[in-house]
This record gives sequence, C-alpha cells and structure tokens, in this order.
Amino acid sequence: MIRNVHVDIDHAPYSILIGEGLLQSVEPLIALLAQKRVAIVTNETIAPLYLAGLVAQLEAAGVECQSIILPDGEKYKTWDSLNLIFDALLTARAERKTTLVALGGGVIGDMTGFAAAVYQRGVPFIQIPTTLLAQVDSSVGGKTAINHPLGKNMLGAFYQPKLVLADLSTLSTLPQREFSAGMAEVIKYGLIDDLEFLVWLEENMDALMARDVDLIAYAVERCCQNKARIVAADEKETGQRALLNLGHTFGHAIEAGLGYGVWLHGEAVAAGMVLAAHASRALGHLQAADVDRVINLLQRAGLPVVSPALGGERYKALMAQDKKVDAGRIKFILLRQLGEAYIGELPEIAIDTALLAGCESSK
Amino acid sequence: MIRNVHVDIDHAPYSILIGEGLLQSVEPLIALLAQKRVAIVTNETIAPLYLAGLVAQLEAAGVECQSIILPDGEKYKTWDSLNLIFDALLTARAERKTTLVALGGGVIGDMTGFAAAVYQRGVPFIQIPTTLLAQVDSSVGGKTAINHPLGKNMLGAFYQPKLVLADLSTLSTLPQREFSAGMAEVIKYGLIDDLEFLVWLEENMDALMARDVDLIAYAVERCCQNKARIVAADEKETGQRALLNLGHTFGHAIEAGLGYGVWLHGEAVAAGMVLAAHASRALGHLQAADVDRVINLLQRAGLPVVSPALGGERYKALMAQDKKVDAGRIKFILLRQLGEAYIGELPEIAIDTALLAGCESSK
Repeated sequence: MIRNVHVDIDHAPYSILIGEGLLQSVEPLIALLAQKRVAIVTNETIAPLYLAGLVAQLEAAGVECQSIILPDGEKYKTWDSLNLIFDALLTARAERKTTLVALGGGVIGDMTGFAAAVYQRGVPFIQIPTTLLAQVDSSVGGKTAINHPLGKNMLGAFYQPKLVLADLSTLSTLPQREFSAGMAEVIKYGLIDDLEFLVWLEENMDALMARDVDLIAYAVERCCQNKARIVAADEKETGQRALLNLGHTFGHAIEAGLGYGVWLHGEAVAAGMVLAAHASRALGHLQAADVDRVINLLQRAGLPVVSPALGGERYKALMAQDKKVDAGRIKFILLRQLGEAYIGELPEIAIDTALLAGCESSK
Repeated sequence: MIRNVHVDIDHAPYSILIGEGLLQSVEPLIALLAQKRVAIVTNETIAPLYLAGLVAQLEAAGVECQSIILPDGEKYKTWDSLNLIFDALLTARAERKTTLVALGGGVIGDMTGFAAAVYQRGVPFIQIPTTLLAQVDSSVGGKTAINHPLGKNMLGAFYQPKLVLADLSTLSTLPQREFSAGMAEVIKYGLIDDLEFLVWLEENMDALMARDVDLIAYAVERCCQNKARIVAADEKETGQRALLNLGHTFGHAIEAGLGYGVWLHGEAVAAGMVLAAHASRALGHLQAADVDRVINLLQRAGLPVVSPALGGERYKALMAQDKKVDAGRIKFILLRQLGEAYIGELPEIAIDTALLAGCESSK
C-alpha cells in the first residue's frame, strides 16, 4: 500500500509517496525527470545499502547516473562538502535539467537540496529519505541548508523537491539511536497542534519502538500531512511555520555547544522540547503533570530528556544566534497546552528556571 | 527628474529609480526597510567615494549600519568573498529582517544578492548600482551568482531586490573603460529586440560616450524597461529571458579562457556579440553590412570587436560548460536580423566560421 501526501505549494506542488519497498520500483521518480540524467548524492553509510540497486533500475530505464558519495555525519554538513558536490557536477558537466537525487538522511537531504537550489541557479531535485527523521520532517517542505561555524543551518534556501519517496523498508537498517532521534520529531507534531496524535503516540509508543511497520506507516503519513498543511500555508516561514521549530532553539544551542554530531539533531530537539515545556510551565501555561507527560513519552522513545550543563550564559549566547531573533529578541516556540504551540518571548527568569529544571547539574 | 521603471514580478514587484543625485536622498530606501538595520556591501574602490555619505544619511534616520568592504574585481567573485560577507553578518548577528545593500558594480551586486538569497535562507536586499553595466543590466532582474573555477556564474540564485536605486551621478567617476563595458550591454538591448533603440544608439553614440547626462538617463531607462518586460515574462529563464545572453556564451568563454578580470565582462560580451553576428551571417540570416553595423557601433563605444585567439577547441570546450547546454547541445543566442534575436543551435561549421572571422590571428 502506497500512501500519497500532496504538498500544495502554489508554484511547485509535489507528492510524498510513503510505503514499503518503494526503492524497488522507482518509476514515479523516472517519470518526473526533465532529462534522462541524474546525480545521486549519498553518504558512505547509505551507499553500500541502496545505491547499486537504485542505479541499476535507473540505468535499465536509460537514465544516465552520476554518484556522489560524501562522508556521513552532521559535522560534514559544511560548505566543503557542498563544494565536493559542485566540483563533481561541473566536472561531469551536469546541466540545468539534470536532477539531483538525495539518498540518505537529513544531512544528505539538506545539503543536496541546497546544492540543487544554487547549482546553475537551480536544478530539479528529488528526496529519497532513508531515516525516520528525514521521512517525517526534513525531506518535506523545502528547507535546505548547511551549517556555518557560527550557527546551524545559517546558509540555505527554501527550495522544494519535485517528489519525496519515503521507503519505509529503509528504516529496518536504521540503528536504534537514529530511530529514536526521528521519533523526537514525530512527537513534536503531536505537541505543536495535534493532541489526538499525541495521545495515539502515548498509546502506541512501545509498538512503534518495536518497529511495527503498519504503525510506523501511519505515523509517517500523519506527520507528513501535518507538515504539508503548515508548509503550504506559510512556505517561507513568515508566521506559523515557525511552530515546527518547537525545541529547536534550545536544541540548536545544545548541538552547537557540544559540537555538531556529538548529539544527534533529534536528541537535541528532544531535550530542547523538555526545556520548552519547563519554560512554558514557568509562564504558567503547563502543569507539572503536563511536563511529565512530555518527558515520559520522550523517554519511552529512548530519547534524552536532560540537557547538557553548558551554563546559562552560554545557552543564551548560542540562542541569540538563532534565525528567529528579531531586533535582538529571541522568539521561542512555547506550549499554551499540550497540542497547542505558539510563538512568544521568554523573560530571562523563565529561561533560567527552565535551564535549572532541565539541565544536568553542572557539578 | 526621477524615472521609475516598475518590475512586475508576481510575488515580488519592485521599482528601479533612475536619476541624478539619488544617493543624496535615500528616503525611498529607508522607507522599505523591514528593520532599521542594514549591512552595506561594497568594494575598496567605491567605499571611499560613496560609503560615508550613505551611512551618514542612514544613521541620521536611526538606521544601524554595518559596512562590509571587499576587494575590487571579477576575480574576487568567489565563494571566499561570499564567506567574508557571511562571517561579518554572523559575527554582527545580522537577522532575517536585516537588509543587505549592494553598493557597487555588477560583481558587488551579484555577490550581495546571492548572499542575501542564502543568508538565513533569505533576507531583503537593495541594489545601488554605481556602474553603467550594473544600472542597465546586472542589478535588474534578480540574477545573482558567484563564479566557480570551472565556470562563470555557476552557483547562484534567482532572487529579486526590493528596490534598485540607479544614481546617474555615480557614472561621473566611472573610468572610460568601465563606461564602455556597460555600453556593450546597452547595445545588446538594441540588437535583441529593439531596432528603434539600436538606430537611436547609432545616432547618439558620440554624445553618449561624451557622457551627455540626459541621453544616458534615457538609455538607462530604455534598457531597464526592456529588461523588466523580459524578466517579468520569464523570471527563471525557462524561455525568452535567455535572449538577454546575446554574446554571453562566446563572452563567458573569453572571460574564462583569458582568466577572470583580464577582459571586463562587457568587453567580452562585445566581442562575443560580434562572434554571434558572424555566426548568424554564416547561417544566412545577416548580411555583411549588418555585421559591419554591429562592429561599427561597438567600436564607437570603445569596445573590442576582435576576440582573443584561444583556438577553436578551447572555445568549444569552454562553451560546453555554459548553463544553456541541454543534453550536451549548446544553445546560442543568434540574430535573425538586427533587432531580432532567437535561441538556436549552431552547426560546428558555423562556429568555426565565426571564430575564423572574429578572432585574432593565432600567429
């Protein structure tokens, strides 16, 4: 059974196809190619698993394939890696109608999307996300980026794929830690505006973590539907799309503060959502029992719920670099209640209270 | 008298203001700022001339200004220069509503526009072009880019400014060689689809080269009107916008073949348009007298009309890297007649004939 979530963006609508074994029959991908030529960008972990099979199918259909294999990890989400893609494309004389295919997790998707956005001022691209995090979140919606030493995802573009192929079978090779990291973003969708889904996750988390494929398929579809709705309403994040960043302002500070790649993005988002919950409680929105529900669900998903002891000043300095800062004021995503996020500011005392409640003791 | 050319792009219409002394009263710029904060990107040549005056006006209006001064020249249109902009913006914590202002010629405009397109996935930007080439062509229409060692303008974005302020007074400090280079693009507009303007240029070229301000104002406005019309109809260059590249396929080969900055862009475009005219004659479209008219007008504008002897194979290899290549076939902009360009292919014999007629003897 193939589930199809339509992303209704005015200038460039596209489909997210979700199902098992989609990588075994990529006709929907081939049908969209502007030219029988692709460049597949992947990494050293994913290439041995899925690259040869994908290339064989494409070549059997007469599609010329170039493969670009990057090192694996968030710390390689840099200009230097991006330039490896450009060098390879230019050396092979990739053209404006050549399609870039991102085969991998969030880092590969973000970098390939950005490369597609700027190579010759924009070439088509297609996402084949192979991690839970990429399938439910990063491959959908057109946010592409690389990191800069002074901030995560600071350079990038809003650039939509022509198609997202989410093959659930790829999740079977995903290490448990990566699976948990993806579950952080799944839980995020419940928290921000889908209480019904949050309750469903509480009921089904153990089966999900045991990799029940039918439940995972439902969760991926639900997340994609939620994201598609939000992105279609606010592609360039002038308003409500920012809600998707719940936990990310704190989380980015954790990732940057520890060094990219020490914690996985999803792990940092999980601990960041706990901090956002503590802060929301400090403002009087959440009760202690609500915060506990957030913590319990994240823990059942195998995620960290206590943030590292970077120190309050360091957290604030790192968060001041966030893209949501306006006139020097940091915009946080907070919870009015479970299943209802909003964009607001935090008095310093609430930040301090949240960090005190949610960070490791610095001793 | 301020002339206003409206660029009617669906999602982001904007004005090109053309007149003398516009840099003395930048209220139209201030009125458009999303936040009272700008980062002005300029170069070492332009900064001593206009930067202090601009900053003084902005600060008097309560606008916080950051200045980023780059080295001058096409050879600095690189990722390294772009990264100087990003480092400066991130260090100063420039935000999503901070406006980037490009103060300079085509290189500054292209780099600043690209920086604005990707910094935090896009911030507002404003063009203040200070060369004839930038005022009539590169500042209008949203093409931004940097060069790559393997090709000119290979990395970039379509990203529209919020405003273009073309102060004709800045042309008074422009060296004659730069003025001539800009005139190549002016003549281009006549050749591609405006025979009436071509004839007007033939009648007025001597007075234009003597810097008659009223005639220059008319020429800049006419060029901007032509470009605005073409860009509004085809922002992303899926079709007719490519006509604006008359002379550029040959010209980019000249620039890359000699090394960026040896010839000015406009000089390479001039010699490239002569090659395009020779090629069009080889196809039977133009008469010898038509080619002579093109050559004469360019010569009166102080421009080179003979291309360097790079050798036919080298020209073809460089042109094969062009962004207009589709399935390995180079798309050329050719002339059906003077004032009517079209997009087509060239048989190898026509390329050889054009190079033989239009290049220096290789002895």
